[in-house]
Formats: sequence, structure tokens, C-alpha cells
Amino acid sequence: MDKALDYVRANQERHVNELMEFLRLPSISALPAHTGDIQRAAQFLAAEFSRIGVQNVLVLPTQGHPVVYGEWLEAGPSAPTVLIYGHYDVQPVDPVELWHSPPFEPVIREGRIYARGATDDKGQVWLIVKAVEALLAAEGRLPVNVKFLIEGEEESGSANLEEFVLAHKALLVADHVLICDTGFLAPGQPAIPYSVRGIVGAEVHITGPKTDLHSGGYGGTVRNPAHAMAAIIAAMHDEHGHVRIPGFYEAVLPLSEAEREALNRVPYTLEKWQQATGLQTPWGEPEFTLLERIGARPTCEVNGMWSGFQGEGGKTIIPAQAGAKFTMRLVADQDPTVVAQQFQDYVMSVAPRDLSVEVFLKSGCGPAMTPIDAPEINAAARAYEAVWGVSPVYLRGGGSLPILATFRSALGLPFVCLGFGLPDCGAHAPNEWMDLNYFHLGSEAVIRYLHYLNE
Amino acid sequence: MDKALDYVRANQERHVNELMEFLRLPSISALPAHTGDIQRAAQFLAAEFSRIGVQNVLVLPTQGHPVVYGEWLEAGPSAPTVLIYGHYDVQPVDPVELWHSPPFEPVIREGRIYARGATDDKGQVWLIVKAVEALLAAEGRLPVNVKFLIEGEEESGSANLEEFVLAHKALLVADHVLICDTGFLAPGQPAIPYSVRGIVGAEVHITGPKTDLHSGGYGGTVRNPAHAMAAIIAAMHDEHGHVRIPGFYEAVLPLSEAEREALNRVPYTLEKWQQATGLQTPWGEPEFTLLERIGARPTCEVNGMWSGFQGEGGKTIIPAQAGAKFTMRLVADQDPTVVAQQFQDYVMSVAPRDLSVEVFLKSGCGPAMTPIDAPEINAAARAYEAVWGVSPVYLRGGGSLPILATFRSALGLPFVCLGFGLPDCGAHAPNEWMDLNYFHLGSEAVIRYLHYLNE
Repeated sequence: MDKALDYVRANQERHVNELMEFLRLPSISALPAHTGDIQRAAQFLAAEFSRIGVQNVLVLPTQGHPVVYGEWLEAGPSAPTVLIYGHYDVQPVDPVELWHSPPFEPVIREGRIYARGATDDKGQVWLIVKAVEALLAAEGRLPVNVKFLIEGEEESGSANLEEFVLAHKALLVADHVLICDTGFLAPGQPAIPYSVRGIVGAEVHITGPKTDLHSGGYGGTVRNPAHAMAAIIAAMHDEHGHVRIPGFYEAVLPLSEAEREALNRVPYTLEKWQQATGLQTPWGEPEFTLLERIGARPTCEVNGMWSGFQGEGGKTIIPAQAGAKFTMRLVADQDPTVVAQQFQDYVMSVAPRDLSVEVFLKSGCGPAMTPIDAPEINAAARAYEAVWGVSPVYLRGGGSLPILATFRSALGLPFVCLGFGLPDCGAHAPNEWMDLNYFHLGSEAVIRYLHYLNE
Repeated sequence: MDKALDYVRANQERHVNELMEFLRLPSISALPAHTGDIQRAAQFLAAEFSRIGVQNVLVLPTQGHPVVYGEWLEAGPSAPTVLIYGHYDVQPVDPVELWHSPPFEPVIREGRIYARGATDDKGQVWLIVKAVEALLAAEGRLPVNVKFLIEGEEESGSANLEEFVLAHKALLVADHVLICDTGFLAPGQPAIPYSVRGIVGAEVHITGPKTDLHSGGYGGTVRNPAHAMAAIIAAMHDEHGHVRIPGFYEAVLPLSEAEREALNRVPYTLEKWQQATGLQTPWGEPEFTLLERIGARPTCEVNGMWSGFQGEGGKTIIPAQAGAKFTMRLVADQDPTVVAQQFQDYVMSVAPRDLSVEVFLKSGCGPAMTPIDAPEINAAARAYEAVWGVSPVYLRGGGSLPILATFRSALGLPFVCLGFGLPDCGAHAPNEWMDLNYFHLGSEAVIRYLHYLNE
């Protein structure tokens, strides 16, 4: 392993120069004018795969932008196989006038490389490619089998990735997926997100009288759809913030003591929550901390509701209709299809029989979680510790990443995040940068990670 | 009394001709272009008052259109004083192309007089004027004291009437107010509305986080304002449709057995309700009939509510705000100010302490009711029975009439409705008409009413 690490250290200047070349390609996936640049970026990456010894390199078409695939499978059948996921496309650059230097003319200032994609995600893709190059060049082999899946549509919603994965299941067989698109919690403090929530949505429509009715002529005899909707919404939670949908928590994996300890080490304070929300008092299940509620507990939220007259002044009506939009965030091992059905059943069970109540379920995605004591997570932690001398914090994210759900549902893969971005690095904003130290140390961490996986 | 009745019968043709002259004045109060016509109609009425022997005739200015006042007070201090309320202004005529004859060129077809204002309200004002003329001409006196208050802004909201009444309290001292602006339930079936509901409104605003929050990053830790609003709305009623605001029913006068019997004689069926609402099953307090719920029970309704995202698709937010508009319909002897305060106190008592909840009360008006066995009501019933040979039905209206609340609160007057319109007479619609038989019989009924008042 030392040889590979030495190789990285000896070739830092070249690695940065190559990255700058990669960054010069304005591969903005959301803008049709850049379709040619997207193709050039895919070819650039594929050529590099071939040059360093990655095998079976393919630029595979999708309905949108191509996926760059490559593999090295000579570690043998007993060694694990890592599917490495990243993306070569970048965000748009507007407002371009806020950039201190042109977004596709990378420059180095004070140890940082500034360019669109520096952190998200070309810099992180490149540091992995360099780690693989170092291993192949210095040691002649990789400690594990590796497959690359580097897509070109992440910044425009990965619209074709699920179909691609489903169409290439055999090609993508692996033991876990390595995500190289995250970051540190703070400078010097690595972080391992090991869980994201799933999501499923529904819209509820209630239709009462055939038209808005005069509240004088009919008030007191007609069930008001706004009242009925309010009753449904009010029935969703008990006074302690628990969701009352029967069966809702059945599949929820309880937090282990180790997880709770790990989550409590994350430096997240009430003050931080108060600053972000503008509120004084948190709400929610009292037996869980804020981070546990966000990352380890499912939720049911109204995202919008409406009924009747909303303008200035008054209108003395019983509204004909009411509606509400709901989303539920799910955690392992909840199944969005099951929860959607539970939601629908519950709404219908509390809905009045004498009005028309319709539930429209929306397609969602499942949660994804890798156990905190999984060998892959341990390998990632050891890699961070060896390079930065600091133990990572373990995070449960509150948001949802459909691609992780797809990797799990279609390929059965747990995920590991090994990321080297820093807060305020300007991903999706002007003046994106990556710390060059983190770029080089990131390669070292990846070399260590791949080694630790097969110890 | 017979002399006055004979006088009416002998002068039918002239009475109709005079009415046609009155109807030719296009006194549309809502349209500034007709301000001159409004003035002409007021003067026309005032001149007729003087001509028939009404005294102290005044055309009194308001901030808007004038009030025509007149009185005859020679019945003596022991006789009751009736304040006769009506209006000389009319609705606009659009869509004018749907009229079969021009709205201000009255014509007689098949026993009906067609013109804007024929029923609402010039025809009914004129039949009273003719009754008073008949009494003064044929009997030399009225059986009671009479004051006329005929306004010119009823069809545009009586915006200045409350101020006028408050400014002329001494002038308007009376024992009850006679409203000449209602109608029969069906041909041959007179009706006496003896109660209208009051109304008071409120808007509730809830502010949660300082901005819409990502439901992934914060879901489970932030009290959702839409949920809080739903809980407030859901707390307004129990499962049987009773309003749960403490004290809400305290001042409600119970229905007497006589009233319930009277209300149950009104031909109102479930089928009629179903046809009007498009619903199968009524809702509301099970111990009351539909008509009782509408007329004799107070209500609390949401007229509109809103929160968060209402567009197509989804938006995964915890909304920053939620709002709802409420109105409460009140019955005797509820006080809108007291109920508004009860509403506000209740909302604040069920509202979460950790969000900002504001209640904005709107000015309302009180209910108005004259006891069904009041002498004035009896006199009206006897008048209908004597002229039409049919007992009237007694109605409790669900709507609100601020002017009745003003007569009660400012002058302490109960009200009696003596009306001669027929269903489908086109008030507020094209081809308004009045049945000429009802016009003449109406005069007879008014003569009888005034006599019965002082027997």
C-alpha cells in the first residue's frame, strides 16, 4: 500500500494538471447547448480509464447523456467488488458575473482550485481515478474488484439512471456501491453519511356539495370539506408527534445503542436548529434527539393544503372542495409501496363516508441505509482516521436519494460515502473550489479504503 | 276597515298606473350614472307621501343616496307606532338582452306587471303607500302611528343606513319595524320570516419557521403550521356537529314547542336539500331538523384555508405559514362581540404555544328574532289569513340582515315581515314581475295588519 501512497505523493502536480484539463470541459448537463461538451467529458474520462489500465471501458448511451463504464476484476472471486458511482456533469454557472475567475478556466489560489465541478464532482471522480491509477501502476493490481459507473445527468436529476441500472443489472453486479460525492462536516472533521430517508407522496381531494354553498342557507346541515380535511390532517399525529397511521412504524429499524452514541457525537446544537428555522422550540417525538428525528425516524408532513376562498376579505361559503398534499419520509426498512397503502387505508378510515374522498398516491423511493458496523463503513472510517488522524462522525441524512434506493432495490447494494468536499465549497454556487490537500489526501484515503476492504 | 278595503278595490286601476310611473324611474343605486334617477325616485315618493296626507315628509341626505321619511302620528300615545322600512332603489338590469320588454317600461301581461323593481321593492312600497292612502282617505285616520323609512341604497349594501339610523334615533322611535321586502313561500302560501341569523367572522394566521423548510432536512423536528391549523379547525366541532367553543351556546334561546311545530309545518324535504347540495346525507346536530339547524342554531364554518404549495406536482416543504377564514352564524340572543371573543379565546387555548398564532376578528352583526307569539306576528298572520284564507308558515332564515340587527341594537325594535313577492318573480334577474292580484291584496293585508295591531 505504501508504494501506491508514494505514487500519489510523487505525482501530485500531474494529477492537478489533469484535473484542470477535465474541469475545462463545460459539461453542463442541464443545457442542450453543452451536449457536445458532455460527450467530450465522457470520452476524456473513458480515455483516462483505458490509459491507466481499467478494462472493458464503455461509453454507454442512455435516453439522455451517456454513462462511462469501466472495470478491473482481477482481484479474484473471493475479493469484494466495489461499484464506484460518481458523475462527470456539472451545474450551470449562473450568475456568472459573481465568479472571480471564469468557471471553466480553473485557477489555483491559496491552495484551492477554483472551477465549476472542482468538488462536485469532477475533483472527487478524478481523485479516485488517480488512486486506482496509483494502485495499478505501483502495485500492479487492485486489492478488490472495481466497477466504475460515472453518469452524466446527476445535476439534471439522473432522469435515465434507474432505467440504465435496470437494463444493465448483470454488468453492475457488485457487493456495495461507493459514492464519491459528499464531504466533510467541517475542516478536519470527516463524516460518513450512512443512511438517507425514502419518500412517498400522496394528494387527498375531498368533494362536498356540488358547488360552493351559501353559509347562511346551508350552514349547519352540510359537512364542510375543509373541516373534513382538517380532521384527516389532525388525525395524522398524536400529541407527541408520533404518526398515527396503523403499521407505519412496523418496519422501522430501531436505532442501536452504538448508532445513538455515534449520532450524539455529531456537533449539532439546538442553537443551530433555532438559527435555521427561526423558531425557539423543536417539535417531534420526544424520545428521540433532533438528529435522530431527522435521520432515523419516518415523518408525515402536509406540504400544502387548500379550500374555498383565499382572497382579501370574506366570502360566506361552505366550500365545495378541499385538498392537501402529503409527503412521508421513510427510514430503513420501510417500503414506500406498503406505507403508501397504509396511508391510503388510514385516510379512508378516518374520512367521512358522506363526502367523496380520493387519495392519489405518487411514486416514491425507498430509504437506504448501511449498518454502521458494516465492514465497508469500518473500512471508510479507518481510511479517514489513517489520513486525517480523526475519527469520522456518522450521519443519518433526512433527505432522499432515489439513486441509492435504486442501487439497493435493483442491485441489492448497500452504499458507502467517501467524500472530500468542504462546507462552503460553492457546489451549485459561484466560485466553486476544492482544497488541493483534500484532493491528494482523498486519493490516499481511497487507496487505503480499497485495501482495508480486503483485509 | 271595510271602507278602506273598498277604497283599495275601487282604485285598483289608478294604483297600478301610479306604480308604473314609479317603475319608470331607473333608480339603480349601484350605478353612479343613475344618481339623478335616484333623486327623482326619492322626490316622487316624497311627493306622494305629501299628497296622501303623510306628515313631516323629509328627503334626508346620507353619505350616499337619500332616505325618504314621513310620519302620521295622530293615533295617539296609547296606540303603537310602526316604523315601515322599504327601499326605492333597484338592482341593475344586466343582462338587459334577456328582458322581453325594456326593464323601465313597465308592461302588463297575464295579470303580472313586468319591470325592474316590480316586486323588489317598488311594488311592495307602493302597495303600502296605497294602504295608508286608503285608510286616510276612507277613514280619515290610521289605526296606529306610522313612520316611513324608505332608503335608496338597499341594493348596493345599505352602506349608510346604520349611520343614518344612529344619527336619527329620536326621529325613529317606534314599537316595531315593518319590513316590506319579502314574499310568499309558494303561490297561495304566505310566509312570515321571524328570525334571521347574525354573523361574525375571523381570520386565523399561523406562522411557523421563518421560511418554507426542506421536509428532508427538518421534517420531524418542526411543528408544521398546516398541521397546527388543521388541529384548530378540527377542534371546532365534536363528532355530532356541535361547536366546541366554550360558552358558544350559552345565550342561544331554545326553540319553544310552538316554534318547532310551526317550523315542521314548512314544506321543506330531504329531497329538496339533496337537490340543492348534490349530497345524499345531511350533517349537523342530530337533535334538530334541517330547518332548525339552518334557522335556529348557530354555526361555525371555515370559508377558506390555505398553506404551502398548491400547484401541480409536489414540493417537499414544511410550509412557513397557514391561514383560514371562519364565519359564525349566530341566533338570538347571541352577541357577535361576545362570540368573537369566545372564538379568539378558544383558538388561542387550542393553538400550539410554540408557533405564532394570530386571530383577526371582523365586525359582524347580531341575529334578529321576533317571538313567534308576539302581537305583531299575530297581526300579520291574521291579515294573511283574512285575505288569502290560508295560515302563514313561520320561517327562521339562515342568512343575516345587518339592517335588522341595527334596528334592534340602535332602536330596540323587533321586526315583522309582511311581504307579497312570489317565488321566481325575478328579483335581481331579468323580467322581474309582480302579480297584480297580490299587489292589490297586499294593500288590503296591510290595512288589516294596521287595524289588528290596535285591537
